[in-house]
Amino acid sequence: MRITVTGAAGFIGSNLVDRLLAEGHHVTGFDNFSTGLEKFIAPARQAANFRLVQADLLDLDAVRAAVAGADMVFHLAANADVRFGTDHPRRDLEQNVIATHNVLEAMRGHGVKRLFFSSTGSVYGEAKVFPTPEDAPFPVQTSLYGASKAAAEGLISAYAEGFGLQATVFRFVSILGQRYSHGHVFDFCKMLRTDPTKLRILGNGMQRKSYLHVSDCVAAILTVMERQTEPFAIFNLGTDEYCEVRDSVGWICERLKLQPELQYTGGERGWIGDNPFIFLDCARIRALGWAPRYSIRAGVESTVDYLLENADLLDARA
Amino acid sequence: MRITVTGAAGFIGSNLVDRLLAEGHHVTGFDNFSTGLEKFIAPARQAANFRLVQADLLDLDAVRAAVAGADMVFHLAANADVRFGTDHPRRDLEQNVIATHNVLEAMRGHGVKRLFFSSTGSVYGEAKVFPTPEDAPFPVQTSLYGASKAAAEGLISAYAEGFGLQATVFRFVSILGQRYSHGHVFDFCKMLRTDPTKLRILGNGMQRKSYLHVSDCVAAILTVMERQTEPFAIFNLGTDEYCEVRDSVGWICERLKLQPELQYTGGERGWIGDNPFIFLDCARIRALGWAPRYSIRAGVESTVDYLLENADLLDARA
Repeated sequence: MRITVTGAAGFIGSNLVDRLLAEGHHVTGFDNFSTGLEKFIAPARQAANFRLVQADLLDLDAVRAAVAGADMVFHLAANADVRFGTDHPRRDLEQNVIATHNVLEAMRGHGVKRLFFSSTGSVYGEAKVFPTPEDAPFPVQTSLYGASKAAAEGLISAYAEGFGLQATVFRFVSILGQRYSHGHVFDFCKMLRTDPTKLRILGNGMQRKSYLHVSDCVAAILTVMERQTEPFAIFNLGTDEYCEVRDSVGWICERLKLQPELQYTGGERGWIGDNPFIFLDCARIRALGWAPRYSIRAGVESTVDYLLENADLLDARA
Repeated sequence: MRITVTGAAGFIGSNLVDRLLAEGHHVTGFDNFSTGLEKFIAPARQAANFRLVQADLLDLDAVRAAVAGADMVFHLAANADVRFGTDHPRRDLEQNVIATHNVLEAMRGHGVKRLFFSSTGSVYGEAKVFPTPEDAPFPVQTSLYGASKAAAEGLISAYAEGFGLQATVFRFVSILGQRYSHGHVFDFCKMLRTDPTKLRILGNGMQRKSYLHVSDCVAAILTVMERQTEPFAIFNLGTDEYCEVRDSVGWICERLKLQPELQYTGGERGWIGDNPFIFLDCARIRALGWAPRYSIRAGVESTVDYLLENADLLDARA
């Protein structure tokens, strides 16, 4: 297959690209390197069946060129910064909504008929049903990130209906593992590297969250790629468990062999728009035969190990 | 109150403006006259407490100027063309999503804290529950129009959460009455004016739809303006009934004293993304004390009467 992957130099994107290349597909990777890293895509660049397009998704001509001739598109590029949405409210609109519109328009123009999209469990806002199924009650968006991803989902399903695309939306929990470079494990490891005696934790530590290892995530995507038959489908992607933030803090500290003083900032939410409970019902994707291999704890621990081995990431990023 | 109304020269906007002016409010009307009409806003322009800004919502500076000093904003401007979304897929994105983002940014910049937004029952896609409540199962968008309105709703609720707006979303059924200039009654009257002997009807005529008279719509908006206490609320707005398209055809023909040959194009849907059944649960708005005065039939008949008295509208528009 000829496959275009947006966000190819990102965390999940680069893991997916490596897997697609290993399976013999011809991959065009698209990235603006705003958060993607050269080192993540370096292995792919050694492959004869890979080409890289460095451009921004707001450049419609560049997107058009990158999807021309593709059999399918994995649209993973996004502003994935949930926490600081209110600092730059136009970024989610541009990078998540308008960018997705450009991908859809480019595909329509070139007759590319198959799309996979990385959405998020944040589209459920503060869900009222747990574990949260794909057809949970119509949510009220509580973050700009969630709102922008929900908006992109809607554009995709309307294009699927209006223009005959086959489209898949994945609603991910937070992803962990190799090339992880953003999120609470990253923040905690970075803070403890600076000062191993204390750790500041946003909220009361009792926020309940789900995590999935990136290798399980990529395996799920490939499962759907092989087995989905409907013109439009949505799949939650997560594990059948959740943990509290303070559980994760404990695992991280144990792995680092540290016993810092834990300083909780307090409150049910770590920041405006933080979701105190994320736990997705993944029966739909499991019915296709996929199951995760990593527990949340094993995922957190492998991520700590990865960051210890790649400490340049901790030094480089805010 | 100082109130800014976007889409002030439009069908619903101009009716709302007239009512707000009559109640003594100071109103700034904003319109790009892409579909709004000078004749609709002419009565308002006679009022000392009205000023008109002719500009496009994509011009953020103009939006900022129009909301500066306002106590509240009614954001009614939109591309309201449901049927031809696939002919110009960027229009819904620009006029409904990006435009709404600009309104929100302008309000944030000027500290304007109260927003009312006209959304649509189309955000439910093809609903599975009837009458459809505001917390119906997470919908799959089937039209670019519905997708763009759902996207705008999400941006608004995220801004309400992130920046402390008080916001109201109205999900309208189709609106009828004075200044109606777009929709099936308009199309049928126009066709019958050209050829009273036959009438072409998209679909099989059995699509079930709800309609609300614009005076009932404006009354509902004013009720919520007085009585909503929550920081964010969504209200369906419709009647407690629905009709089939062929019922409406019968009422229109009877009112026009015509007996055309009816030609149905067939199929459950009149066009791509058409919704074969729209019927909203309006218990939430009724709990605030509002009730519609017009039945659907009375609304259709009064709309036919309005179009007969304003036949220039039928002649002017495609």
